[in-house]
Amino acid sequence: MARRSEVVYQIFPERFAIGAPHTSASKLALPVYHAKGNARRGWHELPAPRPGETEGPGKVFYGGDLQGVIDKLDYLQSLGVTSLYFTPIFKAPSNHKYDAVDFFKVDPMFGDEKTLKHLISELKKRDMGVILDAVLNHVNYHNPWFLAAKRGEAPYRDWFTFDANGKHQCWWGNEYLAELNLENEALQEILFKGSDSFLAHYLEMGISGWRFDTAQDLGLKTARRMRAAIKPRFPEAQLLGELIAYAGGWLDGSGFTGMMNYYFREAILAWLAGDINHRQINLAMQDYYLACGHEGSLNSWLMLSSHDTMRLRTAIPDLKLRQLAIAAQFTLPGIPLVYYGEENGMQGADDPDCRRPMVWEEDQWEAPMRAFISRMIALRAQHAALQHGALVMLGDRQDSNALVFARHTEVPGEYVFVVINLGRKPFKETVFIPVPHVYSSVPLRDLMDPERPPIKTGGGFVNLEAPASGVAVYAPFEPFDNFRFYKARNR
Amino acid sequence: MARRSEVVYQIFPERFAIGAPHTSASKLALPVYHAKGNARRGWHELPAPRPGETEGPGKVFYGGDLQGVIDKLDYLQSLGVTSLYFTPIFKAPSNHKYDAVDFFKVDPMFGDEKTLKHLISELKKRDMGVILDAVLNHVNYHNPWFLAAKRGEAPYRDWFTFDANGKHQCWWGNEYLAELNLENEALQEILFKGSDSFLAHYLEMGISGWRFDTAQDLGLKTARRMRAAIKPRFPEAQLLGELIAYAGGWLDGSGFTGMMNYYFREAILAWLAGDINHRQINLAMQDYYLACGHEGSLNSWLMLSSHDTMRLRTAIPDLKLRQLAIAAQFTLPGIPLVYYGEENGMQGADDPDCRRPMVWEEDQWEAPMRAFISRMIALRAQHAALQHGALVMLGDRQDSNALVFARHTEVPGEYVFVVINLGRKPFKETVFIPVPHVYSSVPLRDLMDPERPPIKTGGGFVNLEAPASGVAVYAPFEPFDNFRFYKARNR
Repeated sequence: MARRSEVVYQIFPERFAIGAPHTSASKLALPVYHAKGNARRGWHELPAPRPGETEGPGKVFYGGDLQGVIDKLDYLQSLGVTSLYFTPIFKAPSNHKYDAVDFFKVDPMFGDEKTLKHLISELKKRDMGVILDAVLNHVNYHNPWFLAAKRGEAPYRDWFTFDANGKHQCWWGNEYLAELNLENEALQEILFKGSDSFLAHYLEMGISGWRFDTAQDLGLKTARRMRAAIKPRFPEAQLLGELIAYAGGWLDGSGFTGMMNYYFREAILAWLAGDINHRQINLAMQDYYLACGHEGSLNSWLMLSSHDTMRLRTAIPDLKLRQLAIAAQFTLPGIPLVYYGEENGMQGADDPDCRRPMVWEEDQWEAPMRAFISRMIALRAQHAALQHGALVMLGDRQDSNALVFARHTEVPGEYVFVVINLGRKPFKETVFIPVPHVYSSVPLRDLMDPERPPIKTGGGFVNLEAPASGVAVYAPFEPFDNFRFYKARNR
Repeated sequence: MARRSEVVYQIFPERFAIGAPHTSASKLALPVYHAKGNARRGWHELPAPRPGETEGPGKVFYGGDLQGVIDKLDYLQSLGVTSLYFTPIFKAPSNHKYDAVDFFKVDPMFGDEKTLKHLISELKKRDMGVILDAVLNHVNYHNPWFLAAKRGEAPYRDWFTFDANGKHQCWWGNEYLAELNLENEALQEILFKGSDSFLAHYLEMGISGWRFDTAQDLGLKTARRMRAAIKPRFPEAQLLGELIAYAGGWLDGSGFTGMMNYYFREAILAWLAGDINHRQINLAMQDYYLACGHEGSLNSWLMLSSHDTMRLRTAIPDLKLRQLAIAAQFTLPGIPLVYYGEENGMQGADDPDCRRPMVWEEDQWEAPMRAFISRMIALRAQHAALQHGALVMLGDRQDSNALVFARHTEVPGEYVFVVINLGRKPFKETVFIPVPHVYSSVPLRDLMDPERPPIKTGGGFVNLEAPASGVAVYAPFEPFDNFRFYKARNR
């Protein structure tokens, strides 16, 4: 995997931006938005169901599309984002497109293959990547494959599972979502094994990888089959599983390259809410890192919100606490995933409220949060230890209610010590540091407060400090006057 | 090792039951009980020395025997016991027979080889095993081997160790117990290397394994020699060492297959008594598991009492606390060892009081304890995770005074979460679960209170509850409606 400071930005295309020259009115006037059962909203209206509205929340449309994203690439690039992750963009009746009727067609609401190619090419110019969302567990019950299967037509009949009464196996009891039989060879061929399979088709087009919906329902075997099919031709392709759980057991190198780390989100929120103590949060982060392995952790997404969760500001109104969560996201091992609008402190309760259209009015942005995220993106980009250093948890053995850890690469001198202090008193503890090549009398600067006088390492320990409800990230700084060993020529 | 829900029942044969047609009076009238220095007791009398009695506690006889055990096999089978462990049954002058004069002869007080074969055959019919007690460190100073050695006869002279003054090396300063020289090849041959060695003779007869007295005095080298000699011919034979200590270093796969886990007993009793905190008890259990390894732990005996300790009810009069100990014994990795009578709450202080004859009068049984043990035996038999799941300790990171842990097999969905709450307030904590394949929204039932509404997993965590001074054992239950991955066909 390429080693660079990845920051992924998640876009729900229906809600991010409407591409020029369309306006909300002109876009929603297109016939495709007027299918039976659809509702429409102006960009500044809320997605909540309205009294008397019979359409489900999945059928409420705002008109966002891929051209809208292309129009906003400068915005994204200036934020420091390096890759985009789109929830599904393939033809499907809902606004979320998790109910595909055609895997090989970009949904006309979002554009067409030409728009997608244009987007990919624009991203490449900016050295940015893009990850698409593959929903391989189930399809819409209007999907032609499923309709053919119901008619008993070969080969489709065997692409689904029917019981003795002819009832199809569906996902989580939802009969509109027919589960695919991933054991079927012909289906595997079209989804991931064939030379122009679903996965290969778009990788060939230039996307950098796939996020796989509901990984636990795909299973380890399918993950391994997909990886085996994809890796020889696309060795750098990212294949990430969605798992709302601890991902132990998944990242042994043979299947997914990474996971969406919902465990991180749940644990951080529980800690900030006071539901778990500092030992649990420190050990939860350590357990995750050990279970996923170093590479598996680095290639997974650290997320604090998504289209399936409450937004961070709504979950944690207090700005300082929210910044602690963001600090953890940008300093622990993994790729920070920023759900669109979080950088501006957007509000949003549970789905569908968390899928409000992007707020583009700067005066409605939460300026301190935006500044903090920009700063964390920059900080991470400047420090290799934060990008790909190994994790050494330390906070489980301290008394303070803080996440405390070291990150270090194999290069002597490339390390940081992070304190994320939830305590209401300043953190001030002697911390012994079991990290190689941390010699005594190395001057360390708090990157969060570079004006503060440097501290110095002791012989194997450091007296770390962090503000009440605040963050400190200590790193040695050049020149390493007295440290021959740290000097570039010795590395 | 065979994977089944083993529960071992320890019998001190002199005190369990007198076989038909004998009565206490007719049995004790046999000449063998009237050797010089012997005292006799009626079945309902206490074993404590009496005023003016010069016989030691090892010479007080009640008349129990192997036929008595055969007569009670229905009792044992209905309790759910799968194997019996007998303290020594070979010819020796004491009631406990830890001072053998002939390893190849069943003590006439207990029966003869025919009785033993009959017992083994009756056990096999019930699919039950039996483990005998090998005392290889020392023999009675009347043992013919030792008498010959004292006369300077070859090869016996070298089977013992004598100092310059002709004084023999004895066990723990007890001159009646002469230590065998286990470095002697001929002695090794007769004890375990030969085709009809002591160990092989009875394994060939059909016993399932051996428990080795005072393992620390045998040493690692002897354990490895024995295993090497026995394994090729009896690959399933259990070879368990007695060790009143932490068993780290013993179970590397080359020597004993398991240990008697006295560490478990000591730690649990100390915790219940308030001598150690919840971090110590949780970490003691984790350390033991890690030091013995998964297989070594599973093949060791988890014990709370024995013929060498105070009985559980006498140590912990409070029924609820005692049930916490029993719950730990049946849910942590290892084979529960039930000392005869503990299932009925028998009383007994330190040796010899803990060796009272078995109480067979139902009206004297402690009914709730019997019900609890029966239930724990059944629970363990129903859940593979409790039988052979890996251990993940969680209670060391929680604030409550509780043992908290997960057990999980490699089969997705085969897991349990156990809370053994010593606190006087109900346990109610958010616990992050670093266990693979615990997905969100899985319904879990408390097996200790199945009528209680199920709880559900969160994304990587569970809100666990347990009563004050009580136990909860949560497990997912079939059908896993929405969990494809858990379904049998995906396993």
